[in-house]
Amino acid sequence: MADIGAILKKYIPAIEQEIQTALAETPDFLGGVIRYHFGWVDENFNPSRAESGKMLRPAICLLVFETLSGDYRPALPAAAAIEMIHNFTLLHDDIEDNDRERRGRPTAWALWGKPLAINTGDYLYTLAFKTLFRLSPADFPAERLLAVHRLVADSCLALTVGQDLDLRFEGLQQVTPDMYIDMVYKKTGALLEASVLSGAILGTDNAQLIENYRQFARNIGIAFQIRDDMLGIWGDSAKTGKSADNDLRRKKKTLPVLYTLAQTTGSRGEQLRALYASDQPLTDDQISFVRDSLELAGARGYTQQAADSYIDRAFTGLQQINLPGQPHADLETIARFLIDRSH
Amino acid sequence: MADIGAILKKYIPAIEQEIQTALAETPDFLGGVIRYHFGWVDENFNPSRAESGKMLRPAICLLVFETLSGDYRPALPAAAAIEMIHNFTLLHDDIEDNDRERRGRPTAWALWGKPLAINTGDYLYTLAFKTLFRLSPADFPAERLLAVHRLVADSCLALTVGQDLDLRFEGLQQVTPDMYIDMVYKKTGALLEASVLSGAILGTDNAQLIENYRQFARNIGIAFQIRDDMLGIWGDSAKTGKSADNDLRRKKKTLPVLYTLAQTTGSRGEQLRALYASDQPLTDDQISFVRDSLELAGARGYTQQAADSYIDRAFTGLQQINLPGQPHADLETIARFLIDRSH
Repeated sequence: MADIGAILKKYIPAIEQEIQTALAETPDFLGGVIRYHFGWVDENFNPSRAESGKMLRPAICLLVFETLSGDYRPALPAAAAIEMIHNFTLLHDDIEDNDRERRGRPTAWALWGKPLAINTGDYLYTLAFKTLFRLSPADFPAERLLAVHRLVADSCLALTVGQDLDLRFEGLQQVTPDMYIDMVYKKTGALLEASVLSGAILGTDNAQLIENYRQFARNIGIAFQIRDDMLGIWGDSAKTGKSADNDLRRKKKTLPVLYTLAQTTGSRGEQLRALYASDQPLTDDQISFVRDSLELAGARGYTQQAADSYIDRAFTGLQQINLPGQPHADLETIARFLIDRSH
Repeated sequence: MADIGAILKKYIPAIEQEIQTALAETPDFLGGVIRYHFGWVDENFNPSRAESGKMLRPAICLLVFETLSGDYRPALPAAAAIEMIHNFTLLHDDIEDNDRERRGRPTAWALWGKPLAINTGDYLYTLAFKTLFRLSPADFPAERLLAVHRLVADSCLALTVGQDLDLRFEGLQQVTPDMYIDMVYKKTGALLEASVLSGAILGTDNAQLIENYRQFARNIGIAFQIRDDMLGIWGDSAKTGKSADNDLRRKKKTLPVLYTLAQTTGSRGEQLRALYASDQPLTDDQISFVRDSLELAGARGYTQQAADSYIDRAFTGLQQINLPGQPHADLETIARFLIDRSH
């Protein structure tokens, strides 16, 4: 694992400060729930420090902007807005998935009920849009600010479409690998793309450069998710900290599984599709059967090839950018972390 | 009742068309749920016509813009966005309030479950922000467009804060009339204010004129809600179509009730507060007791006076605007409808 901690610690305090500033006028209760969700207070809203997210998305926005402009600070409101949007989606996803725990603590809805948690998500989402207005007209022309607002709205449209697909894939029999990649791009890739592109749009008017950043961002997000799928099945559980059978047991419709379901014919295919049509988790025997089927279908090779093709496109984009300076080198380090991770 | 139908029918087809255009690229399922919610399709997504909302908010936006510019059409995306935001709040409110019916049909969550309905609300909300980008840079300078985006974000922040207060007031013992007015302004008034002000900001740079529109809008929304509270208790049920005791039975914390709870002392006051602290609906005898208490506290006079003071401020704002032409006269007709209605 590349040492991304050293990179992130340069930016995280400033990002947290920007989010705290955005929250300054938030009424007590809403602000408390949001700070709890971020891991900054306990459930009585007293200061405490729980595990937070890595804040990779906002750091990426700042690295790109710093590469282009030399100073990351004017882009902080965009970075903070993206992190707030990410956390809005987590608040609502936890409700939609009925998840009572996140990072070892009760989720917001488990503590305060779904009605208040839904609305707190709506508030945080709105505050993210509002935070974009903290980008200073003294630093950026109005057209560039409008372009960032539009980018973020587009990314959020993709996010909600991706979440719709993800929620409905569970109940669908026919999900093709292409449908899956489309869902993954929308649900995970689009906000990562917005992280990169908000930094780029704020930092330059060079359309080719922005296009190269887009190619990098769009493909790295998909590659990240496919690698995650592989780790869930073939990862070293000592390194990932998760049981290697968890994703299979829960019948998660990941790329290797969808490929195998689509490729496997005959009675094995019928048996396999019947297993995934039932709403029971898999038994140990059934997991062995699925593992054999993945092997027979060549799912690991197929998935690795798919990941590699997105990784190639991402790094081709990154190489075409090829700007000097530490921030660009750090962006590449984070990109390698996203796809090489065994964590 | 003033004939506002004749006014609205000039604008509603264009508003609906603008929303349909915004929905053109929405994936089938999300688009179907949203069109169902608007009353345009049935639950199988086949065309049908159910009762829709009155579309007063977008019509008000267009009337203000037409007053200032002579042509309502360039403002259509702002009007459509506001109507979409209003409907996003209805989708989420129905979930938060566990309401299974709206306008005589099952609510979206009752048909498709809460997870998908929450996410459909998130999508519609995002699409509203996205629709603001259909305001053409050929018609409006970038600064004016940014100002409308900021106005809408501010209004939505108020909306979600108002909803948070409304959800939590149920469980609070001490809600003062001032807290209630603040909640009402945020939950109902802020989006009505944005309807007026989006039309004004798009139509003029005259700060005094915008301020007059703000005075009108801010006060008409509060007056509307207070009148609604009065109708719920003292309205002619033959005209309102609701039982005159419904709001009392459900122990709705409306302005007359909050005033009476705060003003009534002695054993009657204790009895009254005990009734509102329990989670049982009121019996017929208890309703009589509450009606007597309202009478003794002079709640009707107090509430009418409160409504009148907001109505006065609203119409003072409107008179200061005093622009010629039919759209301005129509705006006044709608304002009178909002506060005089016995419907």
